[in-house]
Amino acid sequence: MFVLVNLKAYPCDPVEVATAAHEVSESTGVRIAIAPQATQLSAVAETGVETWAQHVSPVEHGSHTGSTLAEAAADAGAVGTLLNHSENRLKLADIDASLTAAERTGLETIVCANNPDQIGAAAALGPDAVAVEPPELIGTGTPVSKADPDVVRDAVDAAAAVDDSVDVLCGAGISTGEDLDAAGDLGAEGVLLASGVAKAEDPKEALEDLVEPIA
Amino acid sequence: MFVLVNLKAYPCDPVEVATAAHEVSESTGVRIAIAPQATQLSAVAETGVETWAQHVSPVEHGSHTGSTLAEAAADAGAVGTLLNHSENRLKLADIDASLTAAERTGLETIVCANNPDQIGAAAALGPDAVAVEPPELIGTGTPVSKADPDVVRDAVDAAAAVDDSVDVLCGAGISTGEDLDAAGDLGAEGVLLASGVAKAEDPKEALEDLVEPIA
Amino acid sequence: MFVLVNLKAYPCDPVEVATAAHEVSESTGVRIAIAPQATQLSAVAETGVETWAQHVSPVEHGSHTGSTLAEAAADAGAVGTLLNHSENRLKLADIDASLTAAERTGLETIVCANNPDQIGAAAALGPDAVAVEPPELIGTGTPVSKADPDVVRDAVDAAAAVDDSVDVLCGAGISTGEDLDAAGDLGAEGVLLASGVAKAEDPKEALEDLVEPIA
Amino acid sequence: MFVLVNLKAYPCDPVEVATAAHEVSESTGVRIAIAPQATQLSAVAETGVETWAQHVSPVEHGSHTGSTLAEAAADAGAVGTLLNHSENRLKLADIDASLTAAERTGLETIVCANNPDQIGAAAALGPDAVAVEPPELIGTGTPVSKADPDVVRDAVDAAAAVDDSVDVLCGAGISTGEDLDAAGDLGAEGVLLASGVAKAEDPKEALEDLVEPIA
Repeated sequence: MFVLVNLKAYPCDPVEVATAAHEVSESTGVRIAIAPQATQLSAVAETGVETWAQHVSPVEHGSHTGSTLAEAAADAGAVGTLLNHSENRLKLADIDASLTAAERTGLETIVCANNPDQIGAAAALGPDAVAVEPPELIGTGTPVSKADPDVVRDAVDAAAAVDDSVDVLCGAGISTGEDLDAAGDLGAEGVLLASGVAKAEDPKEALEDLVEPIA
Repeated sequence: MFVLVNLKAYPCDPVEVATAAHEVSESTGVRIAIAPQATQLSAVAETGVETWAQHVSPVEHGSHTGSTLAEAAADAGAVGTLLNHSENRLKLADIDASLTAAERTGLETIVCANNPDQIGAAAALGPDAVAVEPPELIGTGTPVSKADPDVVRDAVDAAAAVDDSVDVLCGAGISTGEDLDAAGDLGAEGVLLASGVAKAEDPKEALEDLVEPIA
Repeated sequence: MFVLVNLKAYPCDPVEVATAAHEVSESTGVRIAIAPQATQLSAVAETGVETWAQHVSPVEHGSHTGSTLAEAAADAGAVGTLLNHSENRLKLADIDASLTAAERTGLETIVCANNPDQIGAAAALGPDAVAVEPPELIGTGTPVSKADPDVVRDAVDAAAAVDDSVDVLCGAGISTGEDLDAAGDLGAEGVLLASGVAKAEDPKEALEDLVEPIA
Repeated sequence: MFVLVNLKAYPCDPVEVATAAHEVSESTGVRIAIAPQATQLSAVAETGVETWAQHVSPVEHGSHTGSTLAEAAADAGAVGTLLNHSENRLKLADIDASLTAAERTGLETIVCANNPDQIGAAAALGPDAVAVEPPELIGTGTPVSKADPDVVRDAVDAAAAVDDSVDVLCGAGISTGEDLDAAGDLGAEGVLLASGVAKAEDPKEALEDLVEPIA
């Protein structure tokens, strides 16, 4: 299982969470990555943790102001990027162009989507993985694997029907080891988390509890 | 073959073009539809021609200002709608929601896309049809069927790989009967046209010439 | 006082509301206009009521799909347009371009904004009027003139400081004659309404009650 | 005169340009700042040069993915931010919210706009400065001060009419000391540059030539 922690724009210390994630990953062997804001990519990468961008822009080098170029994200230490998170929904053509940008620089890619139909569409664009996150469950603490297990199963099926080399992750409300286990049972190869770790009083303990069942 | 004429925001008389299209469709038996601006839907529908919207909004009845509700388009006489035209690119989640809106009111749907990957993605959302239009050829007068026949063939394959009940149209630069024939030979079930008819001095003659090989 | 009723995408009969508004305007001498969806402009205009668009696109005649051209809105019978409603927020450059489009075709213009600073900015672009509508009050039934009278006074001051030829309207929660009166006392030259009329069981009665104090 | 160099997404070495800018600023006493991509803010700030963001998001701490929080830009070393660059045009309400975000964290602000009307609108929102950049001149090498001096004069007047505490900069095509001088003569308090420095073979020499007339 791959555990990707999206720090969003939370008021956490990204280096503290990254350091904790790196330690837990090293001690348990579970793959854990941290996705901070673009401004924090280099500081997070310096902790040694696997570092992901939250987004890269659908452009090449050139006259673009306020963008996050895939090359710049990679130079700052990112090895992958989320795309089309429900808090940053993209045009279909821009998901395609951002994937092209990410591939150009060797970034691994996860395209988020809200439901199985959109997961099928995302898979057709050829990312490394897709992630299903029902927007109504994000930040609720109610795990998608319990609230709506069918959406995870259907997402796995939708992706497989289009391209079975595309992995499926799930997110929304994941915070415990039990949730992680349940996600795996439904066919997910990983999970997206955010507040459960980023807002935890002790992020390291939160991560240890989380990965305990699969460590 | 289905011939859909997108009037865009051209300074043509939409009722004149619609009347011509209706007459040519009646006399030749070729299915021809007209897609005017939202403001012109009812006037175009009154000519008797098959009438399409250029876009419907990804919303339901409610507090939305400046939208084109699918229900309102249908009430005005539309029987179908384009979505995600390259001049009106939508977020992936909004294509999905606009398709839901169109289906709710019985509108037929064509989702446009730029290339075979995006065509596969569009097909995964379950529209009635998809249309491949390489943006760089739109308005050039160079037909996609001649300039880039592979993009049409690949689009047909990409859609079929995802859902073989989804028809494929092609567009960009189509203006003659020969172009229409070539599109059919490449596997397209129809074409999108715009300036070739809307900007013609005599739209009726332009349409007659166009459909002559298949009439 | 100018009373502009925005029908949004409500499930009302736009012709019924327009007919009622026309009758009440004729019988009371109060200026009342109706802003339906683009698809309904011509049907509403045919009732004889003053008809406004909810939005016009920041473009000229040309290759634009899914737009509402100012010329097309005017042809359908609109004499004015709202711009930048909080449900249809525009880029600053596009408000400017939509104003240019509206002026080109003789449409009267009202630019909406959320607060006095934005009202000053909108006034600097030279519309006929601006309208302050705190988004948090829209659709609440609590009139802005009671919930936050200072926002109306400050908006009037902000517009006057930039260009005192620009009228100020207010909106959000307006539904009674008392609200209308209070808006006038705060310096507003008109009001925007929506659900109070569009969702009323008897729109004519709702309008009569509304304008009674100023008729 | 304030010289702000926007590195956009150019394939330059941001640290090299920043180091050169810092040295030229120190040796000449001219205020020079560098605006790199968000990912590069901390590396640029470490050179000691005055560092600006190209954009900050119109949000507070919270559930926002792919944003550039003002707090995060400030933590990375930024002391100011551009907003609404013509390559990153924002909604009016979002310029207002991004200004609020920037002020919250002490970032200095420059709001870009295309023409004098929009400059007046931008000034009404209360930024520290506005910058007029006719989009058609960006990247041309033809300085706005020569191609269209009236747009600079009119922008200075438009800002002063709304709020005379707001400085005016100009941009587009600026690359020589003569251009800088001409901008000052037209009333500008500074200039935005990009390709003239970022794409120069020797950025230090380019900056030295640029500021020579005012050093």
